[in-house]
Amino acid sequence: MPAQRIPRKNDPASVRARQQALGLDGEATAIDLEPWTRAAETVTGVAVIPVSIAQLDVSLGEYELSDEGDVVEVGRANEEVAVPLAHTEGGLTASMQRGARAAATIRTVVLADRITRASCFVCGSVAEAVELARWVEAEVDPMRKWLAAAPLPELSTRAKLREVKTHVVGPMCHVLWRWTTGDAVGPNMMTRNAYALNMGYVMERAPVKPQRAILEANMGGDKKPSHEYFRSGHGKTVIAEATLTDEAIRRVLRCEPDDLLELAWAGTHGAVASGMQSVAFTPASAVAAVFAATGQDLGMVGTSSMAHGVGRRVDGGLNVSIRFPGLEVGTVGGGTTLPYAREWLELIGCAGGGRVYRFAQIVAAAALALEISASAAMATAGSENFFRAHHERGGLR
Amino acid sequence: MPAQRIPRKNDPASVRARQQALGLDGEATAIDLEPWTRAAETVTGVAVIPVSIAQLDVSLGEYELSDEGDVVEVGRANEEVAVPLAHTEGGLTASMQRGARAAATIRTVVLADRITRASCFVCGSVAEAVELARWVEAEVDPMRKWLAAAPLPELSTRAKLREVKTHVVGPMCHVLWRWTTGDAVGPNMMTRNAYALNMGYVMERAPVKPQRAILEANMGGDKKPSHEYFRSGHGKTVIAEATLTDEAIRRVLRCEPDDLLELAWAGTHGAVASGMQSVAFTPASAVAAVFAATGQDLGMVGTSSMAHGVGRRVDGGLNVSIRFPGLEVGTVGGGTTLPYAREWLELIGCAGGGRVYRFAQIVAAAALALEISASAAMATAGSENFFRAHHERGGLR
Amino acid sequence: MPAQRIPRKNDPASVRARQQALGLDGEATAIDLEPWTRAAETVTGVAVIPVSIAQLDVSLGEYELSDEGDVVEVGRANEEVAVPLAHTEGGLTASMQRGARAAATIRTVVLADRITRASCFVCGSVAEAVELARWVEAEVDPMRKWLAAAPLPELSTRAKLREVKTHVVGPMCHVLWRWTTGDAVGPNMMTRNAYALNMGYVMERAPVKPQRAILEANMGGDKKPSHEYFRSGHGKTVIAEATLTDEAIRRVLRCEPDDLLELAWAGTHGAVASGMQSVAFTPASAVAAVFAATGQDLGMVGTSSMAHGVGRRVDGGLNVSIRFPGLEVGTVGGGTTLPYAREWLELIGCAGGGRVYRFAQIVAAAALALEISASAAMATAGSENFFRAHHERGGLR
Amino acid sequence: MPAQRIPRKNDPASVRARQQALGLDGEATAIDLEPWTRAAETVTGVAVIPVSIAQLDVSLGEYELSDEGDVVEVGRANEEVAVPLAHTEGGLTASMQRGARAAATIRTVVLADRITRASCFVCGSVAEAVELARWVEAEVDPMRKWLAAAPLPELSTRAKLREVKTHVVGPMCHVLWRWTTGDAVGPNMMTRNAYALNMGYVMERAPVKPQRAILEANMGGDKKPSHEYFRSGHGKTVIAEATLTDEAIRRVLRCEPDDLLELAWAGTHGAVASGMQSVAFTPASAVAAVFAATGQDLGMVGTSSMAHGVGRRVDGGLNVSIRFPGLEVGTVGGGTTLPYAREWLELIGCAGGGRVYRFAQIVAAAALALEISASAAMATAGSENFFRAHHERGGLR
Repeated sequence: MPAQRIPRKNDPASVRARQQALGLDGEATAIDLEPWTRAAETVTGVAVIPVSIAQLDVSLGEYELSDEGDVVEVGRANEEVAVPLAHTEGGLTASMQRGARAAATIRTVVLADRITRASCFVCGSVAEAVELARWVEAEVDPMRKWLAAAPLPELSTRAKLREVKTHVVGPMCHVLWRWTTGDAVGPNMMTRNAYALNMGYVMERAPVKPQRAILEANMGGDKKPSHEYFRSGHGKTVIAEATLTDEAIRRVLRCEPDDLLELAWAGTHGAVASGMQSVAFTPASAVAAVFAATGQDLGMVGTSSMAHGVGRRVDGGLNVSIRFPGLEVGTVGGGTTLPYAREWLELIGCAGGGRVYRFAQIVAAAALALEISASAAMATAGSENFFRAHHERGGLR
Repeated sequence: MPAQRIPRKNDPASVRARQQALGLDGEATAIDLEPWTRAAETVTGVAVIPVSIAQLDVSLGEYELSDEGDVVEVGRANEEVAVPLAHTEGGLTASMQRGARAAATIRTVVLADRITRASCFVCGSVAEAVELARWVEAEVDPMRKWLAAAPLPELSTRAKLREVKTHVVGPMCHVLWRWTTGDAVGPNMMTRNAYALNMGYVMERAPVKPQRAILEANMGGDKKPSHEYFRSGHGKTVIAEATLTDEAIRRVLRCEPDDLLELAWAGTHGAVASGMQSVAFTPASAVAAVFAATGQDLGMVGTSSMAHGVGRRVDGGLNVSIRFPGLEVGTVGGGTTLPYAREWLELIGCAGGGRVYRFAQIVAAAALALEISASAAMATAGSENFFRAHHERGGLR
Repeated sequence: MPAQRIPRKNDPASVRARQQALGLDGEATAIDLEPWTRAAETVTGVAVIPVSIAQLDVSLGEYELSDEGDVVEVGRANEEVAVPLAHTEGGLTASMQRGARAAATIRTVVLADRITRASCFVCGSVAEAVELARWVEAEVDPMRKWLAAAPLPELSTRAKLREVKTHVVGPMCHVLWRWTTGDAVGPNMMTRNAYALNMGYVMERAPVKPQRAILEANMGGDKKPSHEYFRSGHGKTVIAEATLTDEAIRRVLRCEPDDLLELAWAGTHGAVASGMQSVAFTPASAVAAVFAATGQDLGMVGTSSMAHGVGRRVDGGLNVSIRFPGLEVGTVGGGTTLPYAREWLELIGCAGGGRVYRFAQIVAAAALALEISASAAMATAGSENFFRAHHERGGLR
Repeated sequence: MPAQRIPRKNDPASVRARQQALGLDGEATAIDLEPWTRAAETVTGVAVIPVSIAQLDVSLGEYELSDEGDVVEVGRANEEVAVPLAHTEGGLTASMQRGARAAATIRTVVLADRITRASCFVCGSVAEAVELARWVEAEVDPMRKWLAAAPLPELSTRAKLREVKTHVVGPMCHVLWRWTTGDAVGPNMMTRNAYALNMGYVMERAPVKPQRAILEANMGGDKKPSHEYFRSGHGKTVIAEATLTDEAIRRVLRCEPDDLLELAWAGTHGAVASGMQSVAFTPASAVAAVFAATGQDLGMVGTSSMAHGVGRRVDGGLNVSIRFPGLEVGTVGGGTTLPYAREWLELIGCAGGGRVYRFAQIVAAAALALEISASAAMATAGSENFFRAHHERGGLR
């Protein structure tokens, strides 16, 4: 079927021609597209998602990155945050708000910060791949210096090489370059630096010349969940925790502590039985809603939602928590600089440099609040509540 | 910080009061929120994401659901589709377009349609759980009749119970209720029906009374990737395939067929080494972009992006394909009825009933187009291209 | 180093020549090898493993296979079984005995019986593979008849084709032939039948001729643990359960019920964190010991040990259980007919036909007994016991 | 059912009484049990497994453990080894021999040596668990000194603490104590040392007192396969590789190089589709056979068989290899000191101290030889061979 090829450029005339060719004349193309013409190719209109607000009491840590690349807590303060949530799932915001009320204060902690570009060098044999791996591991310091000194304008100085992990299997020497990338998520900056290392350092200097360098060969968890991602992290590793009093469980969540413990027990075993790597309740709903409001990469919703939720009886209540091995979040670069997203980031004090650990914690806290309430809705007595709640609110779906 | 509690309602005065309390006075709150006041609670503003367009040549199957719940192909036609992509990742749309050009026509097929609510009945012993499981498996027909006849207004007649899978472990009898839900994704309708079955049928009539019914206990893959999801599906199971000619690989993708095969080989082994359940290249980027434009549930980006990509040498080129075990997509209900989303669905002929298999195929085709180009960008010679491409286009990140 | 090639045959002269060439003149070659000369090639000596005995009270089901291939319980009786355990791990037998004492009676149930040969047909495209899959699924009945009627002496009539599962990914049509194999484990009989189906039926009659048939392509779990194995079984699916009274936990296991529950909780979460598909404590130790005594295939210890253990508070004690998705056991064929192995099978009433479900249950019961005791040894107070026990008994390692 | 309780001791009178009580009077109890009375409790008879021999040409590295715990290659030599295989699977030994012939020389390399005891400290909150984790990680040096100086006779000086990995999830601080254990597998010696560290160091000195110490909580892969095991190893990490010439593939394996490559391709994708963590062909058959002959722990067959096999076209043939992340092998302690086992270890020069890396390499080489031949038997033309071979040899099963 010979269809017409629409113009691809983002100048006003091309945009208009494109809209006409496609017969688009409604709301989606009525807004001025100028602010986004550099964000993507062939921009033709917009999608609009409503943003609702949940208020959370949080105890946020203040963090700095040490010279060695460790995340160090240097302060902590309680505050209330109004979290923006872009979604159209009836009940979600109310449920998160209910969870926040049950939790009282949610305490968050950042454990680590690393992002990985997983390259692969194909060698002539296992023996050569092993030799290469040993050389690469010993060469990290010189590589750092080379990166710092290399007169390549495309290299990023913000992406800092922290460690290297190698994994030889067959004649492949997989190399996980592990970086910190400041307040940006950093895939592109580490890609540029990893490419430079692969082509300008390894392929040039290795004692055994690989047959081939592949920039990304899947060992690091780039946009696909994996056990390596779950275990070793990719982005910011954050845990959020809260203590639910028995009284709050009954009054706010309208169930019994045992209902939640039973659900945690059955749900964990159900997860094991089904081969679930990420054992929690519905972290993706919260992660997606905050990501969509704040200009994060929605292609990273799945990976960033990998989580491990845990509940435990303590005196007078339950300790509940959720661990995110890798929240791929940024407060600079990418979609965060664009209209709307910027405004929502500003609402929570997370626009611009020096805010990324704060932002990661807010995402984790929001997810924990939703976990608490959604779990309660699925527990026995809660099942009834859940059913009624969804019905009464007339959720759209 | 003792913060004020904002009003929660969605009437105009409450919305305005909320915006003022939060100090929001920019673009994000300038738009009329009325269309979304029923979509979520505490709606306060909007997020706006630019939508770009990639044109794909596709061979789409036409499908009907048989009485037994099988997806039957009743027709097939080639057409060109202009796919809306909501994202801010510089290079993504151009890359998908390049992949589409290399692929010429992408052929898609729908294999199956099922969505699961995974309940759990906690019994007094393994013996009781086994007895319950056998009873539940034998009771599917009466359950279907009961659902059809039950005078409960909240039950959905569109969610049809197709099979039941049980899994006993410990004193738990996990029950996977498997449904078709028409053109809606259907989580809420199957939740209501599953709840009714649990409480109104199983708990009332089972020969062994369970101690507890849990509506969802993680065995089905609800918003969390799992091997069960990857193997048995959740939503529409779709494969998209294309044949890349050697000439197209060289001219359009600027690499050699062997570059792509080597990447597929190393990337698959890297995935195995890292414990990746979903082995493909970057399906989530495409899935997220189409989902965000068309009002799909962004919390399902991770699960719906589970995929298995395969490449293979054939005469004169490469056969490439991607299998999605479960695209959780809808063309009615949820965010699909809302402004903007509706318009983008209409652009691709996917708004309203009878369109969901069409839509699922378009998502899969778009993802394959991006896989092709992004893979090429990561292959050896391609690495260079990728690097240069990202640099030249000045991607935002 | 040019070494001499030893004779390969199993006649007495060749055996002797081989022993001399290798300088073997100790105990390992002092025993008459005649009984084993048909069991393996190049038989040269023997390995001897001590067999110890644990006594278990068990409630064993009596089972028959229905015409449809379902395992049906037709009776149940309590008895005491003296289980033979071939191993050299100091403490193992005593620990299993302690667990049996704590458990009082262990109740076992067989849920299913299937073993799989996972073939693969490589087609020219996804479209062809899909067509093939649909044809194969519709052809199961004729295939059964063809197998029954085929005048091929090598076909097994004991291996009965029960179902077929197909899985299309790329141009591959994976086909899981699922069989019952009577009282034998059955890999060879189903291999012969699957080979005949592949070559004599599918490759001859399929509407789309595959390019290649591969007899085994890894989807079924043949000697490698997998989620498919864990979920769908391979061999006999068996659960063993027991109720530990609080009194028995304290007196026999010398710990508190909470110690065991805490271990179960932390151990399950540790398993999740480490990506463990098989979540139990030490089932492989028990499975290996029974297998080695009774002539089972030791290469199947890993797969047969896949297990899911669960503990739960009940009135006055704990309900504990272990689920084996696939015990690959036989009471006829293979090593079971050989000296020593036969004698140990006879001890437990499991030598010969009609005993395989009995045997599978005894393996599961033995494993549960060990789980109970070994868990207790690892729980807090138990840690101390474990340490002391190992030390006092002067385990060899 | 009140059954008689057999005597439990291993003195001659108790053994005889036991045999009589159980009605055992055949071969299995005819052998003098004295050598094994300290190896296990309630020893009552023996199991005997025939041992066959395969001859392998190997290039073995000579290794030393550096002060830092790295495995360093200090030499390499070719030799022929006659590998003892205890099993009763007809065809296995001949198949391994065929693979060895096709491979010519198999080259092995040891990459690493670590074994893990995965303890867990349950704290009062996530915050406390994080504090504990940071303290533990900083305390490794003092812990090493404490172990060396502690006047506890039960501590092992051979088990050396090399690193610690912590993983906080919920209020749990999982601690992976990583050891080298010389020529022993070492589970008991590291258990004793880990117990001492847990109880004598952490519980005594930690800045935040844990509520509970659990000696083993599943994160390390103890007798259960896991991704952590597959990725980080447990025992000796070894790769074996060989180059199969096209001529050898055709003449010895009777198939084409492409048959093997196609099988590798389909088998790897089948493994991915089925959620197989360990992607190889039949490593467990070889590992089990060598383990059973040489007194290794058969409960570790499943974990030690975790493997990653890779094949790749090279000039004039195929490079094939198998990677074992963790071969749990010993040449001292445990069953290795017992009759028969000792003799078979001596045959391959692996009895006693300083031989463990040699032994690990031989296991890996034997497994690769079997992989080569068994793969060929399953490839297309090979399927026919496999079928015929099994039929002709009249394998027992």
